Amino acid sequence: MDKENLIISAFANSINGDDGAVVDGYCYSKDLFCENIHFKTSWMKLEQIGAKAMLVNISDAIAMNATPKYALLGLSLPKYLDMKQIKALQKGLLNTAKDFKIQIIGGDTIAGKNIDISVTIISKINQKAIYRKGLKKGDLLAFSGNLGESLKGLNILYRGGKLHSNHRFIKPNLRQNFFYDIAKKVRVSMDISDGLNKDLSRMLFLNQLNAKFFKKLNKFILNSAEEYELLFAFDKKHKAFIQNMAKKHRVKLNIFAKTITGRYKFYGKEHHF
Amino acid sequence: MDKENLIISAFANSINGDDGAVVDGYCYSKDLFCENIHFKTSWMKLEQIGAKAMLVNISDAIAMNATPKYALLGLSLPKYLDMKQIKALQKGLLNTAKDFKIQIIGGDTIAGKNIDISVTIISKINQKAIYRKGLKKGDLLAFSGNLGESLKGLNILYRGGKLHSNHRFIKPNLRQNFFYDIAKKVRVSMDISDGLNKDLSRMLFLNQLNAKFFKKLNKFILNSAEEYELLFAFDKKHKAFIQNMAKKHRVKLNIFAKTITGRYKFYGKEHHF
Repeated sequence: MDKENLIISAFANSINGDDGAVVDGYCYSKDLFCENIHFKTSWMKLEQIGAKAMLVNISDAIAMNATPKYALLGLSLPKYLDMKQIKALQKGLLNTAKDFKIQIIGGDTIAGKNIDISVTIISKINQKAIYRKGLKKGDLLAFSGNLGESLKGLNILYRGGKLHSNHRFIKPNLRQNFFYDIAKKVRVSMDISDGLNKDLSRMLFLNQLNAKFFKKLNKFILNSAEEYELLFAFDKKHKAFIQNMAKKHRVKLNIFAKTITGRYKFYGKEHHF
Repeated sequence: MDKENLIISAFANSINGDDGAVVDGYCYSKDLFCENIHFKTSWMKLEQIGAKAMLVNISDAIAMNATPKYALLGLSLPKYLDMKQIKALQKGLLNTAKDFKIQIIGGDTIAGKNIDISVTIISKINQKAIYRKGLKKGDLLAFSGNLGESLKGLNILYRGGKLHSNHRFIKPNLRQNFFYDIAKKVRVSMDISDGLNKDLSRMLFLNQLNAKFFKKLNKFILNSAEEYELLFAFDKKHKAFIQNMAKKHRVKLNIFAKTITGRYKFYGKEHHF
């Protein structure tokens, strides 16, 4: 067992291991967004960093079919940041909270070496929570949007280039309205944070199923992380309904595989627990 | 306005600014516990670090008259930690959670430069929440336990000395049973994390009152931070009841002042929001 699995396994229990933990109609999720791990300050403006820290956390709530309501923040901010820079970071956090009608109800701040942002989102489950577990043989597997842009953007950044403020890597495009509308017909879901292939492998492993792809997907689609699109599955009888909803919400729908018996290659657990 | 106040002020709203945020019968609190800010690895064993990270957060819940139920963790762990060290840290977190019947329902982990632990505690309000606001003129002010040991311990550590595993600085001694029993008679409360004088100044500032001390308190009592004892106030008619409860729970009770009109020196806001 490697160190990351040791960390995650020690805390494993019946509630955790999903995008969020469901207790009494609420969903709780917590992700870290850290300098030199998730971003470099040369890649993104401080306002964009603040916004993305919120969005990657909100994404977990949406994937559970929960509406984010409250947030708590943990902010490690280096002393070199001046008032204007702190305000820019706050603007990103606060405006994104406002966009999703989230109230920031508390937090803690320290002077650290890096910009590290920890966000806890408290969200209210809509009708029913959607978990990763519960997939059935014959279900159709789908993802929203176009995958691959985040990895392409990251490659540009690594080469010293810049990304437009609307680029997927800078500002994930969440699909809450579409997803909340289809949720009652969705069997399982998760957000795509480590790449379709890895995330799918976790979902299939958990459900002890394999997937038969309808066509070969390219390596950008399979491996692009931090997409924050939705990976979900549904009974094939709901296909037309879900296609119609995607059309209504102008969300690209990619029904890319169906579940079959067998085992899919497992790429290991993730950093969440 | 300094930077810390800027950070806190930007997020200020009607719910935050207390030890925890109260929503729908639950209390949410989040504190950071970070290497080289709150502790050095030469000062404490990893198991003690894990335990204290939990305890300082549980302390906020108790001060709100809430029973901790769930926790989410954010762990930044350096790559140099080996499996045994990670297990020791986890043991501290898990055993403390177990002591308080807290279930760890989720979290996130990254490989960082320092050991930084972010804890979110979800607690259930007992009968009624106790806030910092609501103090009345003539109320008696009290703190639990003996203050000063934490600062003395810190001085020993700064001089290169060691502290016993039961020392206050290593393992805060929380007063949940006593406090839950007196809570119905308590007007306002907070935990003593920045030192009695600073924390009292915040409570008095918030309530626009001053305090008349019954006797002079020494500088260790006034300035010792990270005590995690309780600072609270009550109507003088409840004095005998609270004294009896302190006796029953074998908690030292220090009724040190009463509130009067006027202003107390204000030592600025804290790092929480």
